[in-house]
Formats: sequence, C-alpha cells, structure tokens
Amino acid sequence: MNYFSSDFRLGILGGGQLGKMLLSDTRKFDIATLILDPSEEAPAQYGAFEFIQGDLMDFDTVYQFGKKTDLLTIEIENVNLDALEKLEEEGHKVYPSPKTLRLIQHKGKQKDFYNQNQIPTAPYQRFESIDELKKQAAGTGFTFPFIWKAAQFGYDGNGVKVVRSLSDLDALPNTPCIAEEMIPFKNELAVIVARSASGEIRTYPVVEMEFHPEANQVEYVICPARIEKNVADKARSIALKVSEKFNHVGLLAVEMFQTKDDEILVNEVAPRPHNSGHYSIEASYTSQFEQHIRAILDLPLGNTDSKVAGIMVNLVGAEGYSGQVHYENMEHILKIDGVTPHIYGKRETRPFRKMGHVTIVNPDMNEARKIAQQVKETIQVISK
Amino acid sequence: MNYFSSDFRLGILGGGQLGKMLLSDTRKFDIATLILDPSEEAPAQYGAFEFIQGDLMDFDTVYQFGKKTDLLTIEIENVNLDALEKLEEEGHKVYPSPKTLRLIQHKGKQKDFYNQNQIPTAPYQRFESIDELKKQAAGTGFTFPFIWKAAQFGYDGNGVKVVRSLSDLDALPNTPCIAEEMIPFKNELAVIVARSASGEIRTYPVVEMEFHPEANQVEYVICPARIEKNVADKARSIALKVSEKFNHVGLLAVEMFQTKDDEILVNEVAPRPHNSGHYSIEASYTSQFEQHIRAILDLPLGNTDSKVAGIMVNLVGAEGYSGQVHYENMEHILKIDGVTPHIYGKRETRPFRKMGHVTIVNPDMNEARKIAQQVKETIQVISK
Repeated sequence: MNYFSSDFRLGILGGGQLGKMLLSDTRKFDIATLILDPSEEAPAQYGAFEFIQGDLMDFDTVYQFGKKTDLLTIEIENVNLDALEKLEEEGHKVYPSPKTLRLIQHKGKQKDFYNQNQIPTAPYQRFESIDELKKQAAGTGFTFPFIWKAAQFGYDGNGVKVVRSLSDLDALPNTPCIAEEMIPFKNELAVIVARSASGEIRTYPVVEMEFHPEANQVEYVICPARIEKNVADKARSIALKVSEKFNHVGLLAVEMFQTKDDEILVNEVAPRPHNSGHYSIEASYTSQFEQHIRAILDLPLGNTDSKVAGIMVNLVGAEGYSGQVHYENMEHILKIDGVTPHIYGKRETRPFRKMGHVTIVNPDMNEARKIAQQVKETIQVISK
Repeated sequence: MNYFSSDFRLGILGGGQLGKMLLSDTRKFDIATLILDPSEEAPAQYGAFEFIQGDLMDFDTVYQFGKKTDLLTIEIENVNLDALEKLEEEGHKVYPSPKTLRLIQHKGKQKDFYNQNQIPTAPYQRFESIDELKKQAAGTGFTFPFIWKAAQFGYDGNGVKVVRSLSDLDALPNTPCIAEEMIPFKNELAVIVARSASGEIRTYPVVEMEFHPEANQVEYVICPARIEKNVADKARSIALKVSEKFNHVGLLAVEMFQTKDDEILVNEVAPRPHNSGHYSIEASYTSQFEQHIRAILDLPLGNTDSKVAGIMVNLVGAEGYSGQVHYENMEHILKIDGVTPHIYGKRETRPFRKMGHVTIVNPDMNEARKIAQQVKETIQVISK
C-alpha cells in the first residue's frame, strides 16, 4: 500500500462536480489522479494530475484511459462497461465492478435483483418498449397513476414520470422501461454505505429529503433524518443488506421510501458519491468523498458519524435565466455562521441545472433548518 | 463582487503547502487562481487555474505575475516587495499590503513596532551585524543565555538560536540581527486573526503548542489551549490589538508566550495562513484557508468557533532518511476515528522537512490528546 506521493495512478471516469469533490481529497492525500470527461469545461479539469478529454461511452477511449491507471473508479454510471469488463479480465482493478454497474445501470434488472434478494421495493412490471406498456395499460388490472421509469440512461429526474392517464404515455420514448406502483410515503430517505475491497463496511446516518409542500421538489437534504430511531435502524440495516448483496466496493447510496406504515422500500441505488451525502464534507468526521477513496484503495474506513447537524440545499439555475452565471446575494448567505457554498464551476446557467450546493451546519438541528430556509430564500442562480 | 465562476483572477505568491491548501478553497468557490513558485515540484501546481514557475524574489517576475491577476496575496513572506509596492501604486490590490510585509519581514522593525504601539513583547536589542553584537556581548550588562534572531529570511526555526556563551556567536552569519531576552514561559500560544478589507475582524480560539518534555520541539498544536479563560481572553485581545495596529488585510497569526506570571508577550506574527491554524480544516466552522480568501476578497468573515476539539501533529522527515518518501504505518493511523492525514506532495523526504500534517478531532479533548500521541508514535516519514 503506497498511494501517497507515489507513482500510483488513480483514474476517475467523469469530471463533473462529483469528480471535482473527489479531487479535493486525492489532493489532500497527494494521490495522483487522472480524469476522463467529454467536456473541455469539466469542473474536475483542475486539480487532476492529468485531465483527458474523451467520450465515456467509447470503448477505446475508456480502455486506453484505464490502461494509464492502476485503479479505475467512476463518478457517473453511464460509461462503457465492455471496456471496464475487458480491463477487469486483464487483471485491472475497477471499483465499482462492471458487473455491479451493469445491474445498476438497468432499472429493470435492478428491481429484479431486489426481488431475488428479498429486499423490499415497490411492486413493478418490466416492459421491452412503451408500446408493450401501452397495450397492457389499456387493459384491466392497471392502476393509474403509476411511475414510468426508463430502464437506462436516466439522471436527475430525467427518465422518470408520473403517468396519470393512457395519453401521458404518448410523450414517452419507445425504449425498455418499468411501470412502478406509486407508493404514498411519509419520507424519502437515503443511506450511504461504504464498503472496502476487503469487506469492511460502514453506514452513514439516515438522511431525509424534505420536499417543497407544493412543488413536490426536494428542497433540503437533512442529516440526521428527523425520524424515529427504530425506523432509522431499519433503514440502515436494509441499506447494509443491499450493499452486501451487490458485493460492491466503494460507496453505495441507497435511496428509500418510508411508507405510511413505517415500512422501508428501496427505490434505487447509486454506486458512487451522491447528492444526498454532500452534507458530509462539513458535518461528518469523514466526508463521503474521502470515504469513497478509502474504500476503493482498501484503506481503513473512516468514522461516518456527524460532528454537527447538517443540511444541504442544491443551487440550481433559476427559471428564466440562461447564460454566464451570476450568484446573486452570495454575500448575504456568507454572513450567516455555518454556511458553506460549493460552486461547481459551470460557467453557463440554465433553468434547473445543478450549479452548486450550500451546506448549513449547526449544533442545533432546528437552528440549521431555519438557516437553510433563509439560505434557500436568499441566494439565486441567475445570469447577468 | 463577482468572484465565483467569473473572469476574476486571484494570484498567490508561493506554491508550497499553504498555497495548496488555499487552492482547496478557491476550487470550492470556483475562484480562478494563479500560482507563482520557483519549483517545478511545488505542491500547489495542481488545482491552480494556471501555475507559473518563477523566482519570487525577482522584481520583473513578481510584477508581471501581478499584472495577470486582479488581486494578489502571498503564502510566504519572502517575496519581492518593490514589485508589490509598484503594483499597489498602480492601483492593484495587494493583501497583505507591502507596507505590512516590510515591517513583518524585518524582525528588528517588527519588535520596534510592538514597542511603539504598547504591545507587550520580550526585551531586545537590535544590531546591524554579528560583530556589533559580539562587541556588546563581551562587555558588561549582557545576560546569557539569550535568543539571537536574524533580522530577515528566517523560517521554521532557521535564523533563531539560543546563545549560551560568546563562542556560540562565532557560528552565526554576519547579518543584521536582534538579541532577545530569554523569557521562561509556561506556554507558547497562538491566535489567528482574520481582518477583511472593510475592517471586519474575528479571532480564532487560542491554540497551545505542546512541547516534547526533553527535545524542546513542538509536538502538538492544540485547540482550544488548555489554559484559564482570563488568560485566553487576554491573548485574544492582544492579538486583536496587534492586528488593528498592523492594519493588515487577510490572516495574521500572532505567536505569543504565556509567562510564569500569566503575562502575554507577543513573539512574532505571520500575515498568512499558519501551521498553528491547520487544525481548523477539520475542527472549525470556517477553515483558516477559506477565511483568508474571504478576508482578502472582502467577503463576510466566517464563524471561527470549533465544532470539536482539534489537535495537529506535523509530519516531518525522520532523521536518517533521505530520498523518495514513504509514509510508514499510514494504514494504522487511518484506522483511528477522527484522524485525517494531509500529505503535501513533496516527493523527497529529508530529516525534519515538513512533509505533511495529521489532524485529530474528537468531541473530548482528553481523548483527542491520547489519539494524537498514538498517531505521533505510529506514523513515520521515511524513504524506501
């Protein structure tokens, strides 16, 4: 084990904000890190030992990039898995493994996997095309509304839709998909699990996504979740089981629903640092980014406890603004104790584009929650 | 005020570990930052918007570098001040100002300044040469031992020596210097003061340097210092006064002695992030590096309180080892909760070279202190 100021080369597929935040910790440990990303404006282009521009879905590009590194990880799931499989066959270390990624990349297979492993999840049906789904939805025994999910390539709410009537299906792409029963839930929760190559495993506390009462949009990620201890324990133990069954290495963010009856249903997973863990940079003893690096390098895992309560607010582009970004009222939120903005480094804002996030930490959760609202109501991502 | 993902360019003179840690926060805020450093192996070469190799003492190099930036700061005091003065005359923003730097660069002038401003400091005499000092020391009224300090260009204990007899002076360079009375002290303390361009000012808690009982070498920087509240209050208020009198912008690390009679004497200052503030990355609401950036950009200052107790241990090259660095037993210290190593990225170790540091955080100071000792006794910076 000699990763620090050495000839060891870590490769990361993807150079978005997650890659950028991973680099903050590879720099801290002085682990030489190479980044592959298609965009010349990738947030992670600074801080890398080498930044290479290239297509993450192209076999040769990913394969050749992999050959330049001693260990490969990802910050985005949509990468060329055939290349990763070939690298793995050739004895290259790839975490998470392409096998895990293939399962997770496909929502139909992911749901089947939960059923096969007795992991509670919402009832669903798989379809090879929207036409097949339409045929069945037109028949009897199909309840509206339901959730349509594209089997592949969805991100940030893309590829997910509430279907209220047959005609809603007309707007959807004719690709493999699933139809999922709509579960009325009390809370949307998430647990990040870290698992190292040698099997050491730790879970972060349960976080809660608080939604806007009308807009049905996540406004705050809150750690710890304001739920009863037995529900939190159940969520953590289910997340642990998911992690063990996937046999993954690195981080696994497990998104879950807490039903009206306090059942926990697994919604979906992400095998990498996750938006629901951003609070950890300021609030936790070990940030999710440092933890991911520890896990894939088979270093001992760090303490997942929090020092203080943490709340995360996403900074997304305001509606009606496109172009060179301007962070309006930044000086007002910086005045408040315990407020840390993270600016991802995207020059152009667009409505709803993820441009950054703000973490609020405080010893007192109620105080943190008040400040989070103040932050949300103050800062605006606009163009000038 | 538009620093974030904008055309604004921050320049930092020096690309050592302090520059590297500053970059961690300029990346977080996406502030485009240029680094000037003479070494092609500078730790801060990664993460900069642009890294320029060049001599920090050369007028033209510093001047031209400054012209490429909108605001200039430093991570090392020994830079060409004439260039900074010319830039300032031309309306360029330079923080800390060359005037403050000129005072601080010269230990004789710095001491005079304390006297002129009724800031308590140990008695001293200034000399233009070692010969002048020798003449006087040979006469009556001079008490041994005393502390010799070179007036300029000292760093990390270089340029400071305990003089026990006349013959000790023979080994010293014939440069301007001061002779300072040796004060028996209970504790060596430090307070970091942040002051923004518009005059907002905040002090960090008092930290304590714990020395090895025999080797007389700082082993631990401990925050908060384990001293009585009235002593801590006095230290903070003296640090505030020093900051106001220097009228500096940015950080000012004020190193002090707590005498046997609980008097506070100012030893010296550094107008930049400082070794005594490294603990703040993990322990404080606002790290000293983020705070320095806030101060020089005239952003509101962040909360200087700690979330948890913090102790910092320097990682210096072990005696008897030179060459390609190896961090022995790193995996053992990573196993302990609340332990974060920072590896600066210097490939070659040498005896006593500062290669990194380790921060230990814990809600309980006694626990943190025990772990710090364990860390210190475990990790070794050697070559292989």
